[in-house]
Amino acid sequence: MEFTHFNEQGRAKMVDIGEKDVSFREALACGYVYMKRETLNMIVEGRIKKGDVLAVAQVAGIMGAKETSRLIPMCHNIPLTGVDINFQIMEKESAIRVEARVKCIGRTGAEMEALTAVSIACLTIYDMCKDVDKGMVIKNIQLLEKTGGKSGNFKREEEKPWE
Amino acid sequence: MEFTHFNEQGRAKMVDIGEKDVSFREALACGYVYMKRETLNMIVEGRIKKGDVLAVAQVAGIMGAKETSRLIPMCHNIPLTGVDINFQIMEKESAIRVEARVKCIGRTGAEMEALTAVSIACLTIYDMCKDVDKGMVIKNIQLLEKTGGKSGNFKREEEKPWE
Amino acid sequence: MEFTHFNEQGRAKMVDIGEKDVSFREALACGYVYMKRETLNMIVEGRIKKGDVLAVAQVAGIMGAKETSRLIPMCHNIPLTGVDINFQIMEKESAIRVEARVKCIGRTGAEMEALTAVSIACLTIYDMCKDVDKGMVIKNIQLLEKTGGKSGNFKREEEKPWE
Amino acid sequence: MEFTHFNEQGRAKMVDIGEKDVSFREALACGYVYMKRETLNMIVEGRIKKGDVLAVAQVAGIMGAKETSRLIPMCHNIPLTGVDINFQIMEKESAIRVEARVKCIGRTGAEMEALTAVSIACLTIYDMCKDVDKGMVIKNIQLLEKTGGKSGNFKREEEKPWE
Amino acid sequence: MEFTHFNEQGRAKMVDIGEKDVSFREALACGYVYMKRETLNMIVEGRIKKGDVLAVAQVAGIMGAKETSRLIPMCHNIPLTGVDINFQIMEKESAIRVEARVKCIGRTGAEMEALTAVSIACLTIYDMCKDVDKGMVIKNIQLLEKTGGKSGNFKREEEKPWE
Amino acid sequence: MEFTHFNEQGRAKMVDIGEKDVSFREALACGYVYMKRETLNMIVEGRIKKGDVLAVAQVAGIMGAKETSRLIPMCHNIPLTGVDINFQIMEKESAIRVEARVKCIGRTGAEMEALTAVSIACLTIYDMCKDVDKGMVIKNIQLLEKTGGKSGNFKREEEKPWE
Repeated sequence: MEFTHFNEQGRAKMVDIGEKDVSFREALACGYVYMKRETLNMIVEGRIKKGDVLAVAQVAGIMGAKETSRLIPMCHNIPLTGVDINFQIMEKESAIRVEARVKCIGRTGAEMEALTAVSIACLTIYDMCKDVDKGMVIKNIQLLEKTGGKSGNFKREEEKPWE
Repeated sequence: MEFTHFNEQGRAKMVDIGEKDVSFREALACGYVYMKRETLNMIVEGRIKKGDVLAVAQVAGIMGAKETSRLIPMCHNIPLTGVDINFQIMEKESAIRVEARVKCIGRTGAEMEALTAVSIACLTIYDMCKDVDKGMVIKNIQLLEKTGGKSGNFKREEEKPWE
Repeated sequence: MEFTHFNEQGRAKMVDIGEKDVSFREALACGYVYMKRETLNMIVEGRIKKGDVLAVAQVAGIMGAKETSRLIPMCHNIPLTGVDINFQIMEKESAIRVEARVKCIGRTGAEMEALTAVSIACLTIYDMCKDVDKGMVIKNIQLLEKTGGKSGNFKREEEKPWE
Repeated sequence: MEFTHFNEQGRAKMVDIGEKDVSFREALACGYVYMKRETLNMIVEGRIKKGDVLAVAQVAGIMGAKETSRLIPMCHNIPLTGVDINFQIMEKESAIRVEARVKCIGRTGAEMEALTAVSIACLTIYDMCKDVDKGMVIKNIQLLEKTGGKSGNFKREEEKPWE
Repeated sequence: MEFTHFNEQGRAKMVDIGEKDVSFREALACGYVYMKRETLNMIVEGRIKKGDVLAVAQVAGIMGAKETSRLIPMCHNIPLTGVDINFQIMEKESAIRVEARVKCIGRTGAEMEALTAVSIACLTIYDMCKDVDKGMVIKNIQLLEKTGGKSGNFKREEEKPWE
Repeated sequence: MEFTHFNEQGRAKMVDIGEKDVSFREALACGYVYMKRETLNMIVEGRIKKGDVLAVAQVAGIMGAKETSRLIPMCHNIPLTGVDINFQIMEKESAIRVEARVKCIGRTGAEMEALTAVSIACLTIYDMCKDVDKGMVIKNIQLLEKTGGKSGNFKREEEKPWE
C-alpha cells in the first residue's frame, strides 16, 4: 500500500484524475463543538431574539466548502452542485453537532469539501462565542458517508469509533 | 452575559476593536488526527524516503492561518508576525498531535488564527492519507493558551477536559 | 411560491443543481455611475493622454465575475467561458453605463456573475475618481437578459422600470 | 484638478499613502434593492419561520468589506476595526435599504469598504430571491459620510441627489 | 494577425471559448533560479537535516497553479486534473531548474497554469533563501510543450532560445 | 549561516518579526519578457488603437503585489502603502522590461511583493499574447534595491549579473 500523493522525487503532487469517470458523487461529514451549558443556552435562545450564531456558521461552512481546494494543497478544484449544513443541539452532551452534505458531478469526490465545511462551521461557532467561553472544544470531525466514483462507497459503521 | 457579535437588529457584526490597545498577542492551539496504526506508520516512514505528509500539512496550516479572516465571517484581518506548527507522533494512541503557535501585534488576539491553522493542517493530513484510511478522525481542536490584550490571559488547565 | 435557498431548518443552503442539464447559458447585465460633469470629462479625456480609468474598471469587472461564487454565499462556482464588458459615455446624463455579458456552459446560469462584474466595475470607477468626486452614485444595477437553462429566458422589457 | 491614480506613463498605480497620518476613520454608505411587493413580503415573513435572506446578506456584506482591496485594483489593504450592516424594510417603496458602517485605524479611509459591503449585500439579496423575481434592481449605492483623515470629512447633503 | 483578447472598444475581454471542444490538454513549463553556490549547497544539505526549501516551493507551486485564473486577468478558470512539479539541482550552473506539468480536461489549455506554477515555485525559493542571498535571479520561465486542443501542439525546439 | 525559515523540527515556519521595528521600507524589482519582434510591434501599436496589453499587465501586477502573502507560503501579510509598475519597450532586444516599486511601513520589507508584482505582470503579458507567440520567455526577475529595516539596504551592482 502506498500514498498516491507523491511523485518519484518523493514530493507532493496533485494526483492526475484525468482518467477517472465523471460521476455523481456525494459526501456526508460531521463534527461537534463542546461548550459550557451556559454557552449552549445562549446560542439556543439567541436564535429567537438576540442573534443567530448558527446562521453565521451555516454561511461560513458553505463558503468554506467552496474554498476547499484553495486551502488543502493537493485537493482538486471541483465545481460543487450542492452544499447543505445542519445543526443539532445536543442538550445532554452540551454540544452542537454540525453535519455537512456536499454533492458534485466530477472526477473526484467531495469528501474534503464536506470535512472542510464542517471544520469552518465549527470554527465560526467558536469565534462567535469565544468571548464567553474560550474552553470550547471541536471534536470528532469525520467522514460519515461517501458515494459515487470507482473506488466504491464508504459508510462509517459507527459515528465515533475512537472515543 | 451577552454575545458581542450582534447588532441591535440581532444580526451579526464585526465588533469594533478600534478602542482596544495595540499589544503583543500570542495564541497556542492544538488538535489531533486519529488514524489506523498502519497509516501512522506510513506517514512516519514516508518522511524519510517516500514523501513527507507533514511537510505539506505544515505549509497548509501556516497558509491557513493567514486566510483566517477570510474564512471566519466576523474575524478581523490582523497582520500576523509569526506562525509555527509542530507535529508530535503519538505511537500509543495511533495519532498525530498538531500544535500551532501564532503571534501578532494588534488590537485583537490570534486565537482564531491558531485554531484555523490546526484545523487546516489536520484536514491536509486527512487529504493526503484518505486513499488508504477514510476512517481517520480529527479530534479535540482547542485553544491551549492566549496571552496579551486587556481581557487577560487564558490557559487551559488540562489539555482534553471533555474526553 | 417559495425561496429555494433554504433547508428544512430554515437555514440557507446552496441548492442542488445536480439534476439540471448542462447547457449553454448567457447573461447580460448593466448599471450606471452618475457623476459630476467635470468628473466625466476627466475620464473621457484621460483615456487619451493621462490615464484610462475605464481600462482598470474593465479588468476589475472581469476579475470580479470570476470571484462571484466566493463573494455571494449561495452561488455555485461555474467555469465561465467568456466575459466582456462595455462602457458607454452618457454625456447628457453625466454618467457612464457599464454593461457585462457573461457566458458559461453549465448547470446554472451566469446572472450573478454578470451583475457582480457590473458592480465591481462601477465600484472601481468610483475608487479611481473619488478624490475628485465623492458624491458619485451607482445606480440601477440590473439583469437585462438571460438565456439558456430549463427555467426559460428572461428579457427585461424596459431598461429602468422603477425610475 | 487631476486624478491621483495614474503614474507618469499614464498607467494606473496604487497611490503612496506612506506620508499620511494614521488616524481613526469611518465611512457610512447605503444602497437599495427594489423588488416586487410579493418578494419583499416573502423576505419579511421568511425571517420568522422559513429562512432569513437578510442574515445571509449580512454575512456576505461583512465578508465583502474584508475583500475590498482584492476586488478594487488600486485600493489599499487596510485592517478594518469594525463593520456593521443594517437593513431597513421600505414597505411603501417595496425595497430594502442596506447601510454599512466601516471603521478603521489607518492611513487611508474606508469608503470603498463601505460601498463594497453594501454592493455585496445587495447582490446577495438578489441571488437569494432571483428564482422568484429576476427583475429586482440595485439602486443608488452611495457614500453618506466619511470622517477622519487629512482630506476632511464628507457628508452627503441629501441621500439621493440624482433621482 | 491580431490579438484575441480585445473587444470592439479596444478593451480587454475574456475570450469566449464556448465553441471549443472539451479535450484532454497538457502543458509543461520550466524556469530557473540562479544563486550563489553557497546558497545552493544550503538547499541541498537542508533537505536531509535542517529544512527542505523545495518541499515548500513544491506546495506553493501547486497551489499557485490553482490560483492562476485569479491572478491573470483574462485567464479562464479551468478545473485542473493534475499538477506535478520537479526540481533539478544544477551544480555546474549553481541553479535550480523548476519544471511544472499541468493537465486538464477542458475547453482551453493549461499553459498559464504551468507557467504560474513555475513562477510561484521560483518566488518561494527566493523567499526562503533571501536572508542569505538577495541577489538570486529567476530566469527563463518558458513553455516547453503544450498538447491538446484545436490550435495544435507546441514544442519548443530548444530549451533556452534567447540566451 | 543558516536559513531562518525552519523550526527545530526542520519544518518551515513563518519567522517571528514581532521584535523588528516598524519602519518605512521600499523595494524595487524588475524582469523582462522576450518575444518575437512582430509581437512587440503588436503590443506597441495596440496601445494606440486596438487594445492595450500593458494596461492589463499593470493592473494584474498591482493586484498580484497585494496577493503575495497568500501565494508565498512563509511571507507575512503587510499592508502596502504604495505600488507602481513601469514598462519599458526595448526595441533592440525585442523585449519589455517590467519594473515594480513597492512601499510599506512595517516590520518586514516588500521585496517579495515587488518580485511578485513583476512576475504576475510578465505572466499577464504572456497570456495576452500567447495566441500569436507561445515562445515568449520571462527572464531575469530580480531585486534591484531594498531600503529600510535593520538588515540594511541592498542595491544590485549591475542589473543582470549572471547573463
